[in-house]
Amino acid sequence: MLIVKKFGGTSVANKERIFNVAKRCIEDYKNGNQVVVVLSAMGKQTDVLLDMAKDINPKASRRELDMLLTTGEQTSVALMAMAMDSLGVPAVSMNAFQVQMHTTEVYGNARLKRIDTERIRNELDNRRIVVITGFQGVNKFDDYTTLGRGGSDTTAVALAAALHADACEIYTDVDGVFTADPRVVPNARKLDEITYDEMLELASLGAGVLHNRSVEMAKKYGVQLVVRSSLNTSEGTVVKEESKMEKMLVSGVATDKNVAQISVEGLENKPGVAFKLFQHLANHNINVDMILQSVEHGGTQDISFTVTRDQADTAMETLDRHANTSLKCEKTTVNANVAKVSIVGAGMMSNAGVAAKMFEALYDAGVNILQISTSEIRVSVLVEEKFVNEAAQAVHDAFALAN
Amino acid sequence: MLIVKKFGGTSVANKERIFNVAKRCIEDYKNGNQVVVVLSAMGKQTDVLLDMAKDINPKASRRELDMLLTTGEQTSVALMAMAMDSLGVPAVSMNAFQVQMHTTEVYGNARLKRIDTERIRNELDNRRIVVITGFQGVNKFDDYTTLGRGGSDTTAVALAAALHADACEIYTDVDGVFTADPRVVPNARKLDEITYDEMLELASLGAGVLHNRSVEMAKKYGVQLVVRSSLNTSEGTVVKEESKMEKMLVSGVATDKNVAQISVEGLENKPGVAFKLFQHLANHNINVDMILQSVEHGGTQDISFTVTRDQADTAMETLDRHANTSLKCEKTTVNANVAKVSIVGAGMMSNAGVAAKMFEALYDAGVNILQISTSEIRVSVLVEEKFVNEAAQAVHDAFALAN
Repeated sequence: MLIVKKFGGTSVANKERIFNVAKRCIEDYKNGNQVVVVLSAMGKQTDVLLDMAKDINPKASRRELDMLLTTGEQTSVALMAMAMDSLGVPAVSMNAFQVQMHTTEVYGNARLKRIDTERIRNELDNRRIVVITGFQGVNKFDDYTTLGRGGSDTTAVALAAALHADACEIYTDVDGVFTADPRVVPNARKLDEITYDEMLELASLGAGVLHNRSVEMAKKYGVQLVVRSSLNTSEGTVVKEESKMEKMLVSGVATDKNVAQISVEGLENKPGVAFKLFQHLANHNINVDMILQSVEHGGTQDISFTVTRDQADTAMETLDRHANTSLKCEKTTVNANVAKVSIVGAGMMSNAGVAAKMFEALYDAGVNILQISTSEIRVSVLVEEKFVNEAAQAVHDAFALAN
Repeated sequence: MLIVKKFGGTSVANKERIFNVAKRCIEDYKNGNQVVVVLSAMGKQTDVLLDMAKDINPKASRRELDMLLTTGEQTSVALMAMAMDSLGVPAVSMNAFQVQMHTTEVYGNARLKRIDTERIRNELDNRRIVVITGFQGVNKFDDYTTLGRGGSDTTAVALAAALHADACEIYTDVDGVFTADPRVVPNARKLDEITYDEMLELASLGAGVLHNRSVEMAKKYGVQLVVRSSLNTSEGTVVKEESKMEKMLVSGVATDKNVAQISVEGLENKPGVAFKLFQHLANHNINVDMILQSVEHGGTQDISFTVTRDQADTAMETLDRHANTSLKCEKTTVNANVAKVSIVGAGMMSNAGVAAKMFEALYDAGVNILQISTSEIRVSVLVEEKFVNEAAQAVHDAFALAN
């Protein structure tokens, strides 16, 4: 078997953990498998490097930031190869230049385009464990790029696809994918299986186990993922096309506090107003999520929408700049004390009562719903941030997810 | 003008110093020059990385060590480019992969073979300052290599040669090349000029300003070097083929405490004995320096030689292993409490009295000479370590080098 194993920063944060990971990989190796290991930077090293950069130049170019950040994973892989070597197993570390991990041009948020596998295959054929830097790539200018949040997961999935790996294991500090965040909902249950689509909704909703891009890529190339703990040997959660489990209505509850609600009041009620509004935001790369358009009252209308909190200021500035010119609105307000609670489940689309059941549970718990948005396999509601935990627990209970 | 400027680790050890270097380079840039900057890792970063490696695997492979160490310079160059950028001057950092700095295969002590200059020239033509990682290269396996001690100096000289630079400035924490180490000989004087050959002798004798390999390369390609301080704007020392100064008998006095004397007593006096002895040492990559072979006494002879202190143990083990077999000697002893004092000067070879004058000065100072070795432009003596400073001062005075 060819196995790709990905370990995050906390799993390689110090000597002891590096050796833990090394032993884990060596076990697979000694069972006759070919092993490719993808690593992130150690512990908080990426943040340390970002702070160094900020201290030198708060507006450092993304090109130079990527040049700086990529040293983080290179450090991890070199140390890991040394650790494996000291345990008697030949290992070789490789960075994005050595692999030739080709990405798009954009610094800080590049996308993988193509991975050369020749050298990796040679090293594997020579019975070496190959330890590869996650998160980084090289663009057509021969510059380092980084893949953005969760980039190492994407590296692992892309490598698994390119190498036609038999397994792709994403190691994390939790046991797998849960029906809800166990810190929020104490009786949350670990799922044995979940579909790509459910995982995608959960990831984008702030479940935080796997990043969207890696799941999208896994789905596209049919790479079956296993999300499991680096701290114990429990089975983890398999992410795949079709869940073999009895089709559950709802697989999990996700909460997301990185949300701010922006309201634009007193907009003219004529065609193109909403278009202009969101065009302005798009021009500033602001991603808009839940959108609510009010019915007309007295010739004007209101539009509310959510953005991530770190984009709220930019969004408000953008709107205010156009408030008296192209936009013509009376008032803009922002509320950062909101949070999103969502239920996700592949069984949802064929069952009309799911949303109603969720709203009922929230009503019973005394939680007011500020906004609603839905997709085929998801229902999200916006609530006041202070109610987010009890809302999640109420919904989790209503769908009996702990059982 | 195209100027290559090299700054060592202490010159970029923190934010303040990084900006000092950035400003210094920008001055040249604003005067219309093309500027290439070569940097070492920040402060003691290389030692920090070596300690990390040692902690994980005391016998880490050189290949993985180089993979780890090369992150040091990449960090410096990225931060430097950010600093220049924040001062309003466009800069771009490049590592050994991006330059394509080709070296021999050997890890930890590779030699530069060829440097691609196309991208550097393009960046310079676009009026960018190009900031390049010193000390590192890439071998034919597409692996990182490092160039050994003083490697960043070599990178700078090689770049100056490849780019046909008009100047190559090596910045250090002293004002230039001195007639002796000012910490040892307080009235030592800074030299305005020195020849490559003199510099080579001084470097190999522990003067510590420039490493041999960089001077050899400068000589080979006719790259005129300037050694100067990064802390002030004084003129520094020019290293070139032919010194324009009146030919001084002696240019400087060097001391070297990294010396151990090994004596092999009671060797058979027959052909091939010395050859065997030094062959054994060469097989273990031990460099032998001053050699003294005694006259025969009672059918046997003694051989004394010096090695660097860190190689003394290995040398003794090697000798003892062969003492009763191929070597047949009575006794081996090692003395690490010795030091070497040398005078260097291109004028020396045509003047017979130089060595005698040195010995007289040492005699007057009451310093016993343990061994002597000479080259065309150098006389070295081995003395007891405790006398090394007064020996250097006495010789410095005898040749009136302070004037």
